[in-house]
Amino acid sequence: MFNKLCIIGVGLIGGSVARAARQQGLSKTILGFGREDDLVNLQTAKQLGVIDDYCLNISEAVTNADCIVIATPVGAIESVFTLLKPLWNEKVIYTDVGSTKINVITAAERVFGCVPDNLVPAHPIAGAEQSGAVAAVDDLFVNKRLIITPDKSTRPDMVQTMRKFWERLGTQVAIMDAAHHDAILAATSHLPHIVAFALVDMLGHKDEQSEIFKYAASGFKDFTRIASSDPTMWLDICIANKNEIIPLIQQLKVELDKVESLLYSNDNEQLFNTFTYAGKARQRFLDLYEN
Amino acid sequence: MFNKLCIIGVGLIGGSVARAARQQGLSKTILGFGREDDLVNLQTAKQLGVIDDYCLNISEAVTNADCIVIATPVGAIESVFTLLKPLWNEKVIYTDVGSTKINVITAAERVFGCVPDNLVPAHPIAGAEQSGAVAAVDDLFVNKRLIITPDKSTRPDMVQTMRKFWERLGTQVAIMDAAHHDAILAATSHLPHIVAFALVDMLGHKDEQSEIFKYAASGFKDFTRIASSDPTMWLDICIANKNEIIPLIQQLKVELDKVESLLYSNDNEQLFNTFTYAGKARQRFLDLYEN
Repeated sequence: MFNKLCIIGVGLIGGSVARAARQQGLSKTILGFGREDDLVNLQTAKQLGVIDDYCLNISEAVTNADCIVIATPVGAIESVFTLLKPLWNEKVIYTDVGSTKINVITAAERVFGCVPDNLVPAHPIAGAEQSGAVAAVDDLFVNKRLIITPDKSTRPDMVQTMRKFWERLGTQVAIMDAAHHDAILAATSHLPHIVAFALVDMLGHKDEQSEIFKYAASGFKDFTRIASSDPTMWLDICIANKNEIIPLIQQLKVELDKVESLLYSNDNEQLFNTFTYAGKARQRFLDLYEN
Repeated sequence: MFNKLCIIGVGLIGGSVARAARQQGLSKTILGFGREDDLVNLQTAKQLGVIDDYCLNISEAVTNADCIVIATPVGAIESVFTLLKPLWNEKVIYTDVGSTKINVITAAERVFGCVPDNLVPAHPIAGAEQSGAVAAVDDLFVNKRLIITPDKSTRPDMVQTMRKFWERLGTQVAIMDAAHHDAILAATSHLPHIVAFALVDMLGHKDEQSEIFKYAASGFKDFTRIASSDPTMWLDICIANKNEIIPLIQQLKVELDKVESLLYSNDNEQLFNTFTYAGKARQRFLDLYEN
């Protein structure tokens, strides 16, 4: 499919793209690019065979590449665009794997004046708590969903090439606009992360006095797993998508007000209905998730 | 240890007490008691060897029993006390396995005028999403915590007997007063359940319009697992412990206000600190949980 794939940021996601692309034979060579302070990670990536080689010079890194994957944290995408701007090549497909998409579009507009027609923004809905090239695996994307969010200017042939690329990595690809993507992910990913961080932050301060965590069980472990996610990555995501997230936080507070007032007034019937509706809604999610 | 163990309510917990007690040889016979509408479950329990036999008549059920375990939902404990009152025997140890403890004490006070000195309230911090005798297993309590909450009148010899009983089932036993128990469990169990129910209730209504669940991932699955818990059981728990839970809901709303305002003002540093503190607090929990 490609002669040279260039991965900018060889972390969990970028490294797993490299591993899966190699396994599927999608590129003759795979090169990693990173900054000086990423050198040890890049060396590890090369030793582990995640990438063929690495390069700290962006100009060398992109030479002869026909696909460039930006796999940095969301907050670094604009500076990567700035780095790439003088080297931008109309024939190359540029893509990214960021968890928020409006910010990629607006970063491109700021740097290039408009969204380049050979930029294909994408978001593989896959991840893990671990990070770095050392955590990269061949099958991170197998049976996962991937959303491509083309801008109105994006070249349809390049969208189709990237759809095929991601399908070969095992994903189910959907195409939607960036605003819809950000609204959906705010609800089922960003809001839950914020709630988990907020709840554990609050209980952590209580625990300092009273050892409440000693008596917490497996339900608490699962509920709070996402509070162990990388804080830098999640800071970037939350800031990038705050326009969607803030109204959801407000809605959740209204929902908590409702439960609080049902408890206060011993409204067993409405509480039971709320809990039952939630259980059924989750079952609807599980049916989708498992098929 | 006992000649006859009587289990009132042979569900997941009651059935697992029976199975584990049999495996450890802690009682010569184990009898289950339930209401008429529990007949099929009791028949299943007998067929599966969870209990030796069952009985729908409370007077026969408790005859010659030296330990009676009340394993009904929390909301039914007062009616079980009423049922047991005319048959109450000073030599028998009565215990329960309810997830809230102040309500057991106050239910006993309402029914008996004071807390009987041979009632040893307990809470094994163990469970599963499944319910009924069919879900009962030998090892539900192994390496789990169990909290005994004696009243000031509770006989110390009976507390010691029940401590030994539960330790033989594999639990690590702690002893504390009921109010402290309820405050701790409200924080790490009841509040997370309410938040999970509230969030899934809210998102479920959105999903009806926009299929947001289609793009939710494994993080969402784990975060919401407790929203699939039995709504009847959780209604009981939330009502029983609402005096502890309501202030925690209020505190969580304040915490969400804080995050919302940090997002609004782009206070990256404080957001990063909050997320980082939460991650470290969860690590403290994991260290306790895994040791």
